[in-house]
Amino acid sequence: VTVSPDVAVLDHDRAARTGTPEVVLGEWKTATQIAELLAALAARGRGAMATRVDGDKAAIVCAAVPGATYHADARVVTVAATGPAATLPRAGRIAIVAAGTSDLPVLLEAEVVARQLGVEVLRVVDVGVAGIHRLSARLAELRAVDCVIVIAGMEGALPSVVAGLIDRPLIAVPTSVGYGVGLGGLVALAAMLSSCAPGVTVVNIDNGFGAAVAAARIARELSAARQVGGGA
Amino acid sequence: VTVSPDVAVLDHDRAARTGTPEVVLGEWKTATQIAELLAALAARGRGAMATRVDGDKAAIVCAAVPGATYHADARVVTVAATGPAATLPRAGRIAIVAAGTSDLPVLLEAEVVARQLGVEVLRVVDVGVAGIHRLSARLAELRAVDCVIVIAGMEGALPSVVAGLIDRPLIAVPTSVGYGVGLGGLVALAAMLSSCAPGVTVVNIDNGFGAAVAAARIARELSAARQVGGGA
Amino acid sequence: VTVSPDVAVLDHDRAARTGTPEVVLGEWKTATQIAELLAALAARGRGAMATRVDGDKAAIVCAAVPGATYHADARVVTVAATGPAATLPRAGRIAIVAAGTSDLPVLLEAEVVARQLGVEVLRVVDVGVAGIHRLSARLAELRAVDCVIVIAGMEGALPSVVAGLIDRPLIAVPTSVGYGVGLGGLVALAAMLSSCAPGVTVVNIDNGFGAAVAAARIARELSAARQVGGGA
Amino acid sequence: VTVSPDVAVLDHDRAARTGTPEVVLGEWKTATQIAELLAALAARGRGAMATRVDGDKAAIVCAAVPGATYHADARVVTVAATGPAATLPRAGRIAIVAAGTSDLPVLLEAEVVARQLGVEVLRVVDVGVAGIHRLSARLAELRAVDCVIVIAGMEGALPSVVAGLIDRPLIAVPTSVGYGVGLGGLVALAAMLSSCAPGVTVVNIDNGFGAAVAAARIARELSAARQVGGGA
Amino acid sequence: VTVSPDVAVLDHDRAARTGTPEVVLGEWKTATQIAELLAALAARGRGAMATRVDGDKAAIVCAAVPGATYHADARVVTVAATGPAATLPRAGRIAIVAAGTSDLPVLLEAEVVARQLGVEVLRVVDVGVAGIHRLSARLAELRAVDCVIVIAGMEGALPSVVAGLIDRPLIAVPTSVGYGVGLGGLVALAAMLSSCAPGVTVVNIDNGFGAAVAAARIARELSAARQVGGGA
Amino acid sequence: VTVSPDVAVLDHDRAARTGTPEVVLGEWKTATQIAELLAALAARGRGAMATRVDGDKAAIVCAAVPGATYHADARVVTVAATGPAATLPRAGRIAIVAAGTSDLPVLLEAEVVARQLGVEVLRVVDVGVAGIHRLSARLAELRAVDCVIVIAGMEGALPSVVAGLIDRPLIAVPTSVGYGVGLGGLVALAAMLSSCAPGVTVVNIDNGFGAAVAAARIARELSAARQVGGGA
Amino acid sequence: VTVSPDVAVLDHDRAARTGTPEVVLGEWKTATQIAELLAALAARGRGAMATRVDGDKAAIVCAAVPGATYHADARVVTVAATGPAATLPRAGRIAIVAAGTSDLPVLLEAEVVARQLGVEVLRVVDVGVAGIHRLSARLAELRAVDCVIVIAGMEGALPSVVAGLIDRPLIAVPTSVGYGVGLGGLVALAAMLSSCAPGVTVVNIDNGFGAAVAAARIARELSAARQVGGGA
Amino acid sequence: VTVSPDVAVLDHDRAARTGTPEVVLGEWKTATQIAELLAALAARGRGAMATRVDGDKAAIVCAAVPGATYHADARVVTVAATGPAATLPRAGRIAIVAAGTSDLPVLLEAEVVARQLGVEVLRVVDVGVAGIHRLSARLAELRAVDCVIVIAGMEGALPSVVAGLIDRPLIAVPTSVGYGVGLGGLVALAAMLSSCAPGVTVVNIDNGFGAAVAAARIARELSAARQVGGGA
Repeated sequence: VTVSPDVAVLDHDRAARTGTPEVVLGEWKTATQIAELLAALAARGRGAMATRVDGDKAAIVCAAVPGATYHADARVVTVAATGPAATLPRAGRIAIVAAGTSDLPVLLEAEVVARQLGVEVLRVVDVGVAGIHRLSARLAELRAVDCVIVIAGMEGALPSVVAGLIDRPLIAVPTSVGYGVGLGGLVALAAMLSSCAPGVTVVNIDNGFGAAVAAARIARELSAARQVGGGA
Repeated sequence: VTVSPDVAVLDHDRAARTGTPEVVLGEWKTATQIAELLAALAARGRGAMATRVDGDKAAIVCAAVPGATYHADARVVTVAATGPAATLPRAGRIAIVAAGTSDLPVLLEAEVVARQLGVEVLRVVDVGVAGIHRLSARLAELRAVDCVIVIAGMEGALPSVVAGLIDRPLIAVPTSVGYGVGLGGLVALAAMLSSCAPGVTVVNIDNGFGAAVAAARIARELSAARQVGGGA
Repeated sequence: VTVSPDVAVLDHDRAARTGTPEVVLGEWKTATQIAELLAALAARGRGAMATRVDGDKAAIVCAAVPGATYHADARVVTVAATGPAATLPRAGRIAIVAAGTSDLPVLLEAEVVARQLGVEVLRVVDVGVAGIHRLSARLAELRAVDCVIVIAGMEGALPSVVAGLIDRPLIAVPTSVGYGVGLGGLVALAAMLSSCAPGVTVVNIDNGFGAAVAAARIARELSAARQVGGGA
Repeated sequence: VTVSPDVAVLDHDRAARTGTPEVVLGEWKTATQIAELLAALAARGRGAMATRVDGDKAAIVCAAVPGATYHADARVVTVAATGPAATLPRAGRIAIVAAGTSDLPVLLEAEVVARQLGVEVLRVVDVGVAGIHRLSARLAELRAVDCVIVIAGMEGALPSVVAGLIDRPLIAVPTSVGYGVGLGGLVALAAMLSSCAPGVTVVNIDNGFGAAVAAARIARELSAARQVGGGA
Repeated sequence: VTVSPDVAVLDHDRAARTGTPEVVLGEWKTATQIAELLAALAARGRGAMATRVDGDKAAIVCAAVPGATYHADARVVTVAATGPAATLPRAGRIAIVAAGTSDLPVLLEAEVVARQLGVEVLRVVDVGVAGIHRLSARLAELRAVDCVIVIAGMEGALPSVVAGLIDRPLIAVPTSVGYGVGLGGLVALAAMLSSCAPGVTVVNIDNGFGAAVAAARIARELSAARQVGGGA
Repeated sequence: VTVSPDVAVLDHDRAARTGTPEVVLGEWKTATQIAELLAALAARGRGAMATRVDGDKAAIVCAAVPGATYHADARVVTVAATGPAATLPRAGRIAIVAAGTSDLPVLLEAEVVARQLGVEVLRVVDVGVAGIHRLSARLAELRAVDCVIVIAGMEGALPSVVAGLIDRPLIAVPTSVGYGVGLGGLVALAAMLSSCAPGVTVVNIDNGFGAAVAAARIARELSAARQVGGGA
Repeated sequence: VTVSPDVAVLDHDRAARTGTPEVVLGEWKTATQIAELLAALAARGRGAMATRVDGDKAAIVCAAVPGATYHADARVVTVAATGPAATLPRAGRIAIVAAGTSDLPVLLEAEVVARQLGVEVLRVVDVGVAGIHRLSARLAELRAVDCVIVIAGMEGALPSVVAGLIDRPLIAVPTSVGYGVGLGGLVALAAMLSSCAPGVTVVNIDNGFGAAVAAARIARELSAARQVGGGA
Repeated sequence: VTVSPDVAVLDHDRAARTGTPEVVLGEWKTATQIAELLAALAARGRGAMATRVDGDKAAIVCAAVPGATYHADARVVTVAATGPAATLPRAGRIAIVAAGTSDLPVLLEAEVVARQLGVEVLRVVDVGVAGIHRLSARLAELRAVDCVIVIAGMEGALPSVVAGLIDRPLIAVPTSVGYGVGLGGLVALAAMLSSCAPGVTVVNIDNGFGAAVAAARIARELSAARQVGGGA
C-alpha cells in the first residue's frame, strides 16, 4: 500500500505527537485518493477513518479497502483496528447533546468518530430551548460524563443554557440548520462564541469530527489521570 | 411655534392615522432642530417626545421647551400632555424584560416611551440564560400582562426561552452589548430572527423605542376590546 | 404512534404553555421522520401540521398519515382536528398583504398556518410601492382587522408605507425575492428593521409561518378580550 | 500658483473632456494641500471647489485662497468664477428631495455643488414614506424639473415611491443616517439598488457631490438640446 | 384577458405616470403567471415584455401569447406594439459598452429592452481595461450618443475610465462575472459606486433592464427637447 | 451589601452548579454598578473579580470595595478569598502561549483569571509562525501541562501549528491585533475555526477570560482525577 | 480564423506590452466562443491557452481547434507553439507548493500555465502546518528556485510559515477548500493578506493562473538578468 | 540592550533565513516596548526600523534610541546601519505609483522601508484612472525599473490599467481612502484581487511596508543575477 508523493505525504507519527492518528477528510478528494490513503493508514493495524464521504464515493472506497465500513447517516468510513489495538478498553465517556432532530447528522459524525477513538458515548437528542423542561430531565446524566458536546443550529442557544447548569468541560458545535438570516450556520456559530455563560469553547460549523477529537483528548486525559491517581 | 418648511414638515395627523403621534429622532439633528420640532408637536397639548438625545443637546432642548423633562439614562426628552389629555387613564399593561444589567439603557428607553404612550410597565431585570432559575421565578408575572418585550445582547438567547414558556405576544430587542464577533449587536439580532420558538417578532438593535410603540399598539387594542366586550 | 427518544422528544404541553402546539419543521428531516412526528402530534385530536415540506416528501407523508392534506404552493402538510376541536369557531381575523405576485408562496404559507390555528384571513396581493394607488384602494379593509402581516422582497419598502397609514399591529416578513445585492432577502430584512415608521416588528426571511403564529396570538387575545369585555 | 509634481498632477483638461472641472476631495488631504490645489484650479477663472472639508481645514483654506467661501453645513469650499465665466446663465433645473431633516447635510452638499456647476435647484425636504401625503403635495413641482435627486437614509424607501409617480430621470442617494443594522448607510444603499421601480440609478452613500454632477450633466444636455431644437 | 386579483393587480397607468409601461419580472413567477400578465399588458396594443425568463418558461409563454418573441441570449420575451404605436419612430440613441465577451448576456438584456422602449442602440464589446487602446478607438462614437451604459464584471474598472474620457450621462452596470472574492458581482458593484470619476450612477448587479429604462428616459427627454427647441 | 433587584439579580449558586462563581463583566456597567456587584459577590469570602474594567472605573471600584486589586494591563479587578478559601492549594497547571508582544493584554487577562480560579500558569510569549524555531524550544514545557491556551492575532496560524505538535487539550483565542482585512480579529477567529489540525476549540475574539475559565475547568477535573485515582 | 467584433476584440499586442499573451478565461463563455478565440490566438504560431474549461466544453473546443490538448484535472486547454517559438528553452524555474491533496486542482492549473509560459516547475505537495516536519524536508529545494507559489485552503497558514523560512519571492494562493466559516476560501485569503511574515503577496481564491503568470514574470526577468550579467 | 523573554523573543537570524531583518510593528506596542526592541535589533550594526508609530510614541522612542530618525508622514522610525553595512551600494530599483494625493502616506511608508532595505525608488504620484493620460506620460520610466508597486484607494482600478501596459512584476496596495461602501479599503482590495489583468499580486490594505519588502526581494534577486551573469 503506497501513496505517490506527488499526491500526498502520510503523517504516520501524528498519533505519537498529538494522541490522534491522521484522519482523511473526504470532501475534496476523489474516491481513489480516499481509498489509497485509508488503506495506507490502516496498514499499521491501529484502524483508520475518513469523514465527509458521500454515498457514491463510499461504495468505491469500501470495495477497495478491506475491513472498511460506511456509516451512511454520519458520512464516515471506518476501518477497525486489528491485533492488539482491537482489544483496548474504552477510555473515558462523553455526552453528545443535539438541540433538534435536524441536527442528527452532525451528532452522528461526532459519535462515530468518538467511538473509533475509543471513547464511550451518551446520546441526548431534541432538548432545544423552546421546551427547556426536556433538558432538565437529563441533567443528572450530563453531570456524570467527562466532557459534553452540545450541538445546535438556528439561534444556537442551547450551549449557553447547558453551560449555566453543569460543571463539565463543554464544546459547542453550530450546525448549518437554519434559513434566511441563519442560512449556513454563521448565526449559530457567532451566538455560541458570544455566549454569556463562560467556559464554552466552539468548533467550526457542522464540525462534529473536530468536537469529537477535542472531547476525546479530554476524556483520555481524565481516564489516564484516574488510572494513575494520587497526583497534582 | 413654527418650523421652516426647508427643514421639516410636521405630520400632525399621524396619531389619527396610526395611533401614535410623531416622535423626534434626536440622533442626527441639532439641538435647535430638536427643540423647534418638540415645541411644535407639544403645542397641541397631547404631549411630545424626542429619543436618542445626548446630555449636551438635552440641556439646550430643556432650556428652550417649556415642560420638557430629560430622562438621562434613557436618553429621552418628554413633554407631558396638558389639558384633557393629561388625565387619561393607563390603557393596558406590558412587561419589559432585560437579560442583564448592561441592557438597562435600552430597557429604560422602552419604559419611558411606553409610559408616555399611556401604558403601564412591569420591569424584570437580569434573568439571562446563564442562570435560568431567575427567570422561572418571574413567569407568573409575565403571563399576566398584555405583551412582553424581551431585551438581550451577547448571544440573544433569552427571547427563545421566554417564548417557549408563555403565551403572550412577544417582541424581542437585540442590544449592542457584546464584543468580538458580537460587536454591535448583529449576532443577537440574527439569533432572535432565527429563534426556534415560533411567534417571536424582532425590532432593530437597541430599538427600545420601536418595541415600545409596537407593544403599546397591542396593549391599547386589548384594552379597548376589553372595554367593548361581547364581540368576535 | 411512538417516536424513538433517540430521534425526537415531543413537547405535547407546548399548546398549554404557549398557546400554539408544536409544529414540525420539515426542511432538514426525512419523510419518515416527518410522518412519525406528525402522526404522533395528531393523535391527540387537535390537528397538526408540518412546514417546508417539498413535494416528494409530502407524497410519502400523506400516504402514511391518515387525514393529511398537502398544500403544494404553501409547502405545508396539515392534519385537521377531530372531535370537539374540529368545530371550534374562528377566533379573530388578520390581513396578509404581499407586495408582488412573486411573494405568493410566503403569503400562502402564512395563510395556511393561520387558518389551521383558527384565524380568519383576508388576502391582499400585488400592492407594491411602485404603484402606491393600488394600496390606497385597500386601506379601509386593512383598518378593520386585528393584525396585519406585510410581505415584501426586493427593497422591502411596503411595511414602512403601510405602517404610516394604519393603526393595526403590523408584522413584516421579508422574502428572498431579489437578485444581485438583494439576493437571498437580507436587504429586504434589513430595510424592514430600519423602517422609519415606528412599531413595525419583523420575522426571519420567508418566515410566513412565524408571522402567522405571532399574528394569531394577537388575534386570539383580542378575540378573547372582546368575549370577556368590561375590563382593563 | 504651482503644485509639486511629487504631490499632485492637476487635470486642467477635465472640463473639456467630461464637462465637469476637477474638484478637490478634501477628506484625506491636509489643509495646505487643499489650498494649493484649489488656488491652482481657480487660477483659470472658471471657479473651483473642494468637498468634504471640515471646519478646521476650511479656516486655513479660506485664509489662503482669495475668493474662497465655506458652506459649513455642506462642508464645501467654493471659489466663484471670474471674468466671462461669472456671468453665464443657469443651464437647466433639478430638484433635490430629502426624506428627513437628518438628511439635510447631504442635500446641502448636492445643492452647493449643483449651483456651482450652473444648475438651478428646487429643494424638497421631509417627505419620507411614513407620511406619504407630504410627498403627494409636491409631485407637480417634481414633474417640472430636468432631473430629480432623491436622498434618504434608514430603509431608503423614498426613491422607489417617487420613481413610481414621476417620469423624470431619477438619481438616488443613500445616507449614513441609521443605526443598528442600518448603521453606515449600507441598508439604504442596497435597498435603492434593489428598487422594484425601474429606472432608479444610485450613487455611493452620502455622495451628494456625485449625484449633483450626474444630474447637472443631464440638465446641461437638456438645456443645450432645447437651445438647438429641431433634432433627433 | 383577465388576471385574478388574488394573483396580481395590473398597473395600466404606469406608462402615463412614469413614461415606461409595467414590465413582467419573470424569475420568480410561473410560466402561466407570466403568460397571463404579458397577454393582459399587450392587450392595449402598445407592446409588452417580460425579463429573466428561462428557456423552459419561454416556450410555454410564447405558445400562449400571440405575437410573443423570445430573445434567448437576453432571456427576454417581447410582444411588439400593434396599430399606431407600432410605427412610432426611434426617439434618441444610446451606446451600450461591455468590458468583455462574458458580459454579453447583460448587454443583450439592456439592448432588447432599450429597443422595445423605442431607443436606437450602438453596441461596443470587449474594450476592458487590460487593453485600454481598444476603448480609445471607439471614443468618438461614444461622444455622439445621448447616454452611455457601461457594463463590466471582475474589478468593474471600466466605468471609471470611460467617465474620465467622455461627457455623456453614464450608467454603470456591474455583472456577476467573477470568482473568488468577486463571486456574484458585489466587488464590481462596490467599485463602481466608489468610482473616483464623478457622475457615474449605478444599478444593481446584472440589471441590464434597469439601466436600459434609465437610459431610455434620458434619451427620450433629450429627443423631445430637440423637437421643441428654443427653451431653457 | 445589597443590590437593587431593578438593577441585577446575583446568582450565588453558580459556583455550585458550574464550578465557577459569577464574574462581573465591567465593560457596559457603571463604576457604581461594578462596585456594588463585586462587593456583594465577595461578601461570601470566596473572592470575586470583574473583567474589562478601564482605569477610570477601576479607581472608583477599588476605593469602594475592600480588598480589591486592579491589574491594569489585564484590565481585571480581583478581590482575594478570605478565611478557609484563601489557603486552598493550586489545582492543576496550564500554559498560556501568545504569538506576539502585541497579544500581551489578552494573555494577561487569561493569566489573572486563571490564577484567581486557583490554577498555576506557565507563560510563553512571542513564538509566532514567522520564526517557528522559537516555538520548538518550548515544546517540552507545553507537553507537561494540563491544558494549553494559544493566543494570536493577524492570520491566527499559531494554534494550528501547536496542535500538530502536542497532545494537550488546546483552546485558541483570536485577538483584535490586525489591520486592513484583519481589523478587529475576525480573520484570526475564522482561521482558528478552520484549522486543519483537529481538536482545536475556539473562544470569542480577545476573550482571555473565557479561555481561562474553560482551561481551569479541565485542569481542575484532571487534578481531581489524579487525587482520586484508580478509576475509569 | 476571424472573430466577430460584436463578440470580442483580440489583443494581439498584449505579449509585446506585458510579456504574456492574451489567455481565454473559459468559465462564462460558450464552447464556440472559446474555440473561436483560441484558434485566432493560436494562428500566430506562439501557442495559446484557455483556463476554467469544464469537460463538456473542452470536448467541443478540442474537436474544433487543431493541436488543442485538454488537461482535465487542471481544467486548461493548451495549444502548443509551432515553428521557431516551439523550440525556445525553458526560462527560469519556480516551485509550486500545496498544503494538501485537496488543493491539487489549483496547483495543476498553475503548473500547466507556468509550463505553457516556458517556465520549469518543481511540485511539492501535502506539507501543511498540521505536520510541519514534512515542509522542513523540502526547504533546500525551495531555496534553489526563482520564485515560490504557496497554495492552501482552510486556515491558509502555510505561506506565513514558508515565508519565515526562505528568502525567495513568494506568491500565496488561497483555495476554496474549506467548510462552515471557511466556505469559499475567504478565510484563507484574508489570513494570507494578514500574514505576520512580511513580503507575502496574494492573488484571488483558486487563481492558480494568475499566480503562475506573476511567478513566470519574475522567473523570466531573473533568467534574462543572468544571461546579460555584469549590471545593476 | 536586553529584552525580557516574558515580553518578546528577538529573531536575530531572520535576515539570514529570509533576506529581511525583523522589523518592529509599532501599532499595538507601547513606546517603551518599541524602544527596547529597536535598540536591541540595532545593536548588531545593520540598522533597524519600526513601522506604524504615531508621533507621541515616536518622540519617546527617538529620545531613547541613539541614531533613531522619525519619518512623520510615513509613521516610520529608522536607525541607520553603522560600520561596513552603512556603505553598501543600492541593490536594484523599484517604482512606487500612487493614484492620488490622498494615498501619499502609504506611498511614503513603502518608500522609507524600501530605501532602508537598500533599494533605489522612483516616485510617481496622482496618475489615477479618471485622467488616464497622466499615466501614459510616465510609462517609459515604469518600464525601466525592476518591480512596480501600484497604490490606490476608492475603486482600486489603477493596478489593472498599469498591468495591461507594462511587463514588470507588479504589486498592488489598496488604501483605506474611500467612504460609504468603500470605507476602510475592502473594495479597493477586492477589486485588485479581481483584476482582469493577469499577474497582479496584492498585499493587505495600507500595507506599504509589506509591498516594499516583497519588491525589495525581487529587486535584490535581479541585482544579484545581473552581478553574476551568464546563467539560467
